[in-house]
Amino acid sequence: MDIKRILVTGRMYKELETLASMDTKREYLFLPETEVCPNHFDWADGYVAFKPTESFHFGKLQWIHALGAGVDAFLLDREWKKDVVLTRTVGSFGRKIGEYCLSYLLADLQRHDTFQHAQSQRQWLPSQQKLLCELNIVIFGTGTIGEEVARMLSNFGVNVYGISRSGAANRHFNNVLPITEVDHVLPQADWVINTLPLTPSTERLFERRLFSFMQDTGFINVGRGASVDENALLEAIELGQVRRAVLDVFREEPLSLQSPLWAHPNVVITPHISAVTGVDEAIEGLLAVLGEMDSGQKRVSQSVDVQRGY
Amino acid sequence: MDIKRILVTGRMYKELETLASMDTKREYLFLPETEVCPNHFDWADGYVAFKPTESFHFGKLQWIHALGAGVDAFLLDREWKKDVVLTRTVGSFGRKIGEYCLSYLLADLQRHDTFQHAQSQRQWLPSQQKLLCELNIVIFGTGTIGEEVARMLSNFGVNVYGISRSGAANRHFNNVLPITEVDHVLPQADWVINTLPLTPSTERLFERRLFSFMQDTGFINVGRGASVDENALLEAIELGQVRRAVLDVFREEPLSLQSPLWAHPNVVITPHISAVTGVDEAIEGLLAVLGEMDSGQKRVSQSVDVQRGY
Repeated sequence: MDIKRILVTGRMYKELETLASMDTKREYLFLPETEVCPNHFDWADGYVAFKPTESFHFGKLQWIHALGAGVDAFLLDREWKKDVVLTRTVGSFGRKIGEYCLSYLLADLQRHDTFQHAQSQRQWLPSQQKLLCELNIVIFGTGTIGEEVARMLSNFGVNVYGISRSGAANRHFNNVLPITEVDHVLPQADWVINTLPLTPSTERLFERRLFSFMQDTGFINVGRGASVDENALLEAIELGQVRRAVLDVFREEPLSLQSPLWAHPNVVITPHISAVTGVDEAIEGLLAVLGEMDSGQKRVSQSVDVQRGY
Repeated sequence: MDIKRILVTGRMYKELETLASMDTKREYLFLPETEVCPNHFDWADGYVAFKPTESFHFGKLQWIHALGAGVDAFLLDREWKKDVVLTRTVGSFGRKIGEYCLSYLLADLQRHDTFQHAQSQRQWLPSQQKLLCELNIVIFGTGTIGEEVARMLSNFGVNVYGISRSGAANRHFNNVLPITEVDHVLPQADWVINTLPLTPSTERLFERRLFSFMQDTGFINVGRGASVDENALLEAIELGQVRRAVLDVFREEPLSLQSPLWAHPNVVITPHISAVTGVDEAIEGLLAVLGEMDSGQKRVSQSVDVQRGY
């Protein structure tokens, strides 16, 4: 594929301007989202952004590169134009999300909240903490992110189960089950971690029935907010199925001020920060993709299967 | 050594009663500390406890076994009786302390406090977090505990320096320096972790001069409280040398209600819980020591060098 003109937009467009001097073979245009007009898509053959602008249409585009790991904003509710290649950034998302998850698992095991409260009361209340190796954790998604979270946890002796469409084995998991057998492992899970991409089949996957298999389970969502039915989650907390929810992603972002999640004592909210793309890794990922395309590689390694949705 | 009668006391004496049926070759006496009288030490040749009772004297003891990893309570301010063997529990303290430290390092990196506050205000304030691999951490002590903490952190790519008396290399540390060269690494340290045993040479080791080498550094104490001059620590926080202190051990335990540490916003207090001996590992450790003694092993593997103090 011969890409000659690239339109770069989104929150990082300024920092990415350095690309123009690193890749002088191509013309670049760097614009804030609000300044991108429909006719820019008739000029550019490449589009680089976190998501489509409001003015987006395929125009003459041959290639789209997502600056994040998730590509749902490009694919959902959109008929994909045949032959347009979609690539994405992989970077260090697995490690970032792994450390995010581990931080909340450990804060819970080590009872940070309990000791913080005791300190505020000047109370000396010793207790014995569990170790990570005593936990059963079920990770939804065994792709690059789920796999890295599993690898990290396995190093501590955590019993890690994976859930995927196929149930194909993966060496970083003790066992991987297909989504149809999720009821075999959820009742034993101390924590459930969702790392799944948003696709038509993961939309509202975490609903009443799925939560009903959980018992006093911690739930971390680092996948996509729309995979969770937030009302069903709140109900599951009320019923003791979910003990604590750590949510980094939401159906609506920023989370609406009216959401009952904000003030719920069993819910931790973070503002979609578990895997923020760094400028360096964005540039590195983009140049790697361009390099593979220039060398005539048939299938670029970070390309997305648009049918499958990830 | 031929041990025939063992006195077991301290907070775990009840749970340890099971020993009598596991080791029928010996007589056991299980007592709460308050019921141990001086004449018990003329009956027993072995003593098992976390620390000496008030009534403690060497009497006919040939062997003392500490149920914790620290033996300072037995050794400091006491003239040791020649030929009395001192052994200690090792168990999973390294892992426990490692997970304790990691939980506070990650909670800090992942800005748990910041996001918790933002949540309470219903504020959506994204930010980018550092990864563990961006940190320089200096661990005081390269023994079984310090080494395990180093191993755990190295797995995440943390740049780990060790400080020990000798400065002898250890494969889990990027570099080990003797205590005399501590000023070479402290200025670059993001965190300092103390795992040292309390001995005459580590008493008040962390004083004004040592803190003066730190700049905006986190400090974790999982060694012994008496290794830290608490006033110098508070001063170091005021001066910005120490950014945050996570303290599990104190000169006086429980920490006095009057201590200014309780209410200090930059201090986290936990009640000496980073490595609580579990009953199972206490029994396992004790039986292992008895087994080695029964088999006539000259130097029992968990024995303490009483001159050195650890």
